[in-house]
Amino acid sequence: MSKKTALPVVAGGGLLDRRCFLKQGLFFSVATLAAESLNADVIESRLPWMKIPGQRFSNYGQPSAHERQTIRWTMSNSMVEGNGVSWTPLHELEGSLTPNGLHFERHHNGVPQIDPAKHQLLIHGKLAKQLVFNIADLKRYPMSSQFCFIECGGNSNAAWRQQPIQTAAGYFHGMVSCSEWTGVPLRLLLNEAGLKADASWVIAEGADAAMSHISIPLEKALDDCILALYQNGERVRPENGYPLRLIVPGWEGVLNVKWLRRLHITDQPVMARNETAKYTDLLPSGKARQFSFVMQAKSLITSPSFGQKLPEAGLYQISGLAWSGQGKIKKVEVSADGGTSWAEAELQQPVLAKCFTRFRIPWQWDGKPVILKSRAIDETGYQQPEREELLAKRGRHGFFHYNAIVSWAISARGQITHVYS
Amino acid sequence: MSKKTALPVVAGGGLLDRRCFLKQGLFFSVATLAAESLNADVIESRLPWMKIPGQRFSNYGQPSAHERQTIRWTMSNSMVEGNGVSWTPLHELEGSLTPNGLHFERHHNGVPQIDPAKHQLLIHGKLAKQLVFNIADLKRYPMSSQFCFIECGGNSNAAWRQQPIQTAAGYFHGMVSCSEWTGVPLRLLLNEAGLKADASWVIAEGADAAMSHISIPLEKALDDCILALYQNGERVRPENGYPLRLIVPGWEGVLNVKWLRRLHITDQPVMARNETAKYTDLLPSGKARQFSFVMQAKSLITSPSFGQKLPEAGLYQISGLAWSGQGKIKKVEVSADGGTSWAEAELQQPVLAKCFTRFRIPWQWDGKPVILKSRAIDETGYQQPEREELLAKRGRHGFFHYNAIVSWAISARGQITHVYS
Repeated sequence: MSKKTALPVVAGGGLLDRRCFLKQGLFFSVATLAAESLNADVIESRLPWMKIPGQRFSNYGQPSAHERQTIRWTMSNSMVEGNGVSWTPLHELEGSLTPNGLHFERHHNGVPQIDPAKHQLLIHGKLAKQLVFNIADLKRYPMSSQFCFIECGGNSNAAWRQQPIQTAAGYFHGMVSCSEWTGVPLRLLLNEAGLKADASWVIAEGADAAMSHISIPLEKALDDCILALYQNGERVRPENGYPLRLIVPGWEGVLNVKWLRRLHITDQPVMARNETAKYTDLLPSGKARQFSFVMQAKSLITSPSFGQKLPEAGLYQISGLAWSGQGKIKKVEVSADGGTSWAEAELQQPVLAKCFTRFRIPWQWDGKPVILKSRAIDETGYQQPEREELLAKRGRHGFFHYNAIVSWAISARGQITHVYS
Repeated sequence: MSKKTALPVVAGGGLLDRRCFLKQGLFFSVATLAAESLNADVIESRLPWMKIPGQRFSNYGQPSAHERQTIRWTMSNSMVEGNGVSWTPLHELEGSLTPNGLHFERHHNGVPQIDPAKHQLLIHGKLAKQLVFNIADLKRYPMSSQFCFIECGGNSNAAWRQQPIQTAAGYFHGMVSCSEWTGVPLRLLLNEAGLKADASWVIAEGADAAMSHISIPLEKALDDCILALYQNGERVRPENGYPLRLIVPGWEGVLNVKWLRRLHITDQPVMARNETAKYTDLLPSGKARQFSFVMQAKSLITSPSFGQKLPEAGLYQISGLAWSGQGKIKKVEVSADGGTSWAEAELQQPVLAKCFTRFRIPWQWDGKPVILKSRAIDETGYQQPEREELLAKRGRHGFFHYNAIVSWAISARGQITHVYS
């Protein structure tokens, strides 16, 4: 840190102006100053991999063996084969995308190994024509691409517990991932089939052994839903719905039916398990909040976060993700004093609707204990609530749709724990 | 195709208004009409994967076994171990991103297997301070993300041949890929080190056994270059420069030094092999075109393209990629009559500078032989040239920087060949 420059502090706990590094004269100075002799050492050094030819070309690349900690952590129900979840390691990632190998999973009966030549999609019900498509048919249709997140309605459910869970950020908030999805806009096929006047719901069904199914309002199906064939450029992978997945941007994950085989157009919801017993919220009034499709604005500091350790007092960059099913993230505010004061973080451009938005802000840690928080505000003006606000609305027996502010406590030793604050 | 609706033809060969599918009443009708009995068949069908639990969770996912054709195709120099290239299969991909496993490669001495704990970056030369960084240091610095393509200066070089090569689009134009890169803006580190008045070039060197090095004008280094630690969300992979890659957005691939270990700040270029013997263009005048860094606007129809076959006359969507090192793609025009008439394609939003832009346009093929072409126009007004224009400027002995219009001939049988037209 250059001693000559005054720190542009903008909020308590050492938060700095989000753009201060664009100005010359404020430096991180984490690097080692190299004497000329050290220079020569580095220049002349020949580490083992500089002495021999490297590995050969590969037809399909894989991550470095030194990054084995960057994996999906899985939790399975031992009573039901193939039932469980896997989490995206958000705390190991940077930028705004999730690589396909790390997209979170939620399966009820494992990952079916589907032969795409035998897979069919039936669109039937309240339509002028009933249509059957194979994958080759669908590939001829006009396609569209959309960057969007998918978040399980049960993401972050450990945060409903009385005591804050102590685990890496991605391993309790990582049932959310963000990809570029490409496929056929659903409205094209529904318009081709000819909707009857009383059509109002779409029941989507997957080709896994559980035949997962769910109800989607027709209005959403005609808006921005996509029958996705591609994810981040390549064909959708088996655990994400190969050969065909329904994408319902910004709405809860269970609606994004994988291995899609049937769309039944009806005049009422089917009242499936996943829209009655699950993914509904029992409110303090005793009534249930059902069909709460839209994932509300949320944010999470991924660095620093639980499991990482700050080596010393000094300059850091706080970095995290924000997203909203209602549209674009308008603003993310960060607090380094447990919520007493807040400063606006820089948003990585371009900010896209219903998509991960990376936020970052520089921070001068003075080495004393602090509590870090972030809160997202979306373009509708909705602001991510504090935990107590969410509990007041939803009661203490919630399980789904948790989107409250996440707090990380940093000790004088630089150790990071999860706290309710 | 609904017989009642007039086709909104906008150019020769059956090109249709790019937005005609947003209007109701114009349908692809590739699907099979399902009688009620067929419906029941599909609904009741239980294909093998619907009868048994599927595969288990995986820590890191892989593509479907049914997509084994979607690979990087490699070509190696058998005289020099680890020297060669691999191509991105652009003809198998959709959307605007390249998954990390399929990003093209160009190596001179294989892929070094670097231990990130031992890797160092030295920044030295015409600076107030000489700095050495390890990877943990760099991870503390402010980061920024940028979507951009990287294209080898030798991409498409087969198109300089007298006869058009007959191979898949990606396997002669696929030394270009597009990712979200995240890392430390180079200008932050150069400003911290303190540039001397006569600093004007940056010599970047990699830690492979070939110690590839190259000269980059300081002005570009201070503009938008990134020291990338992450690609598409996860840590950069070994073949793309793990643990650290220099990203030089929009400029030729060789400048994007992998396994970056040294930045030497000088007052003149180093005249390395890759900026003298290679990546310079011998012009008809006998002079060489050197330091031609910026990759000019280019486009390519990926579907339909060589190796695919149109099953019948009817409606199709033409889809392809466009990119420009000068900034954003402003417009892509498509011709279905060999260049006599052109129609504007739809550009997938958001259009980002120095990034792949997916374009699409619907097309009614009448079953007669046609020639398809696309041409990109970027925000500077630069228009991708016809092959003859490029040859007139550069002569007939070119090898690098080929960016002319690509033509696909479609026969009455729906077979697709590469032609010069």
